Amino acid sequence: MLSKNRIKFLKSLHQKKYRDESSLFITEGEKIVNELLAFNPSLIDCIYHTKEFQFENIQHVNSEEISNSELSQISCLKNPNKVVAICKMWKNEDNSNSDFYIALDEIQDPGNMGTIIRLADWFNVKTIVCSANSADVFNPKVVQASMGSLFRVNVIYQDLNEFITSKKLPVYGAFLEGVSVYSKKMYPKGILILGNEGKGISQEIEALVTEKIKIPRFGQAESLNVSIATGILLSEFFRNEG
Amino acid sequence: MLSKNRIKFLKSLHQKKYRDESSLFITEGEKIVNELLAFNPSLIDCIYHTKEFQFENIQHVNSEEISNSELSQISCLKNPNKVVAICKMWKNEDNSNSDFYIALDEIQDPGNMGTIIRLADWFNVKTIVCSANSADVFNPKVVQASMGSLFRVNVIYQDLNEFITSKKLPVYGAFLEGVSVYSKKMYPKGILILGNEGKGISQEIEALVTEKIKIPRFGQAESLNVSIATGILLSEFFRNEG
Repeated sequence: MLSKNRIKFLKSLHQKKYRDESSLFITEGEKIVNELLAFNPSLIDCIYHTKEFQFENIQHVNSEEISNSELSQISCLKNPNKVVAICKMWKNEDNSNSDFYIALDEIQDPGNMGTIIRLADWFNVKTIVCSANSADVFNPKVVQASMGSLFRVNVIYQDLNEFITSKKLPVYGAFLEGVSVYSKKMYPKGILILGNEGKGISQEIEALVTEKIKIPRFGQAESLNVSIATGILLSEFFRNEG
Repeated sequence: MLSKNRIKFLKSLHQKKYRDESSLFITEGEKIVNELLAFNPSLIDCIYHTKEFQFENIQHVNSEEISNSELSQISCLKNPNKVVAICKMWKNEDNSNSDFYIALDEIQDPGNMGTIIRLADWFNVKTIVCSANSADVFNPKVVQASMGSLFRVNVIYQDLNEFITSKKLPVYGAFLEGVSVYSKKMYPKGILILGNEGKGISQEIEALVTEKIKIPRFGQAESLNVSIATGILLSEFFRNEG
């Protein structure tokens, strides 16, 4: 049984301040936690699971069986799914020397950020660079939306201006006046900037964009969600690599 | 001031049962409601707004100013945005005789459904056909995620098997063993089936698929979210129409 203090501590990890203090964060659900146990067990501080959790490799990590009611108390989900893993944060650095990067210019919605991380993992983009005012990558909603991709993609926080100017790469950003992405072949060499959900790409970063592009619109919707736009753009960058 | 009974009634519209009984549903937020006022005012039963709501054409519809605390009570959002519109449901029918349809085979997540409606609107797909066990198009989360596109796209519920066999069109569905969508030019002629978030396309509908396709994977993510996949697939269908 979990002590009141332990529950209080685990619930505190729902908030950035306490995650940063302890360097711990939460990831949940049978599928993702089993993936973690298989590939990154060293990242696990402790696993709290109900009787129903079916695991394969739990013997080498700290674990504790808890009740469903305890699970509900520590979970970040409306419908908790058998297990909560407390994970150790790590610090990523840009050491990939890659030809292609995604840069997030103040992406605020954790669901969008998680989905973009999952997309990066799908298209094998190794590093995502985030401006300091982007969502926190260890926010439980980012972690869940990334569906385990968080553990495979290098997500770093850095001054975007500094990062972009340090690389000698074309800089892509979507703008209404941009060139249609369907009009010429694109290749994954460059930095793809994705802007804030409401404001788009900031003026400071727009000044660094060398390739203004756009996804042509055929109907009447005013805009596309940023994670949807990311999917379409990445597909355009990689479709000739197949 | 809203009576207790009125508040109770408005809150009941958060649930499908009461929406169906009254044929009313909720849409929220300054931007979408102003769009409604401009283009579809006849769909509005009544608007409840705070003092801060900035509107242009409210004079021809029923409206009532309410307090922020009343707004919080009737809103479906965590952060209500100045206005709630009660709208009259309508019944769509498949009268578009189109060359291209989206069919949803048990899409459960309202956010996904709303995002797919927004995508249909972006690519000018006139009609989405949903199996009876798909999410409810008038669910507030669908309405919000569609960002107003709900009012422009024809969303119908019909037996998918019946619908598909009644059309003489190619039937596209994404499967692991499918042909890469990057390998040949595609055109928007056919029915694109999108399957359930967990189970994919059902066996019954898979039997009707004539064109098995896939989005190639370059990295390690196990899958893509269904609304992201829809965005990439629609982009592939329409990219040669530009």
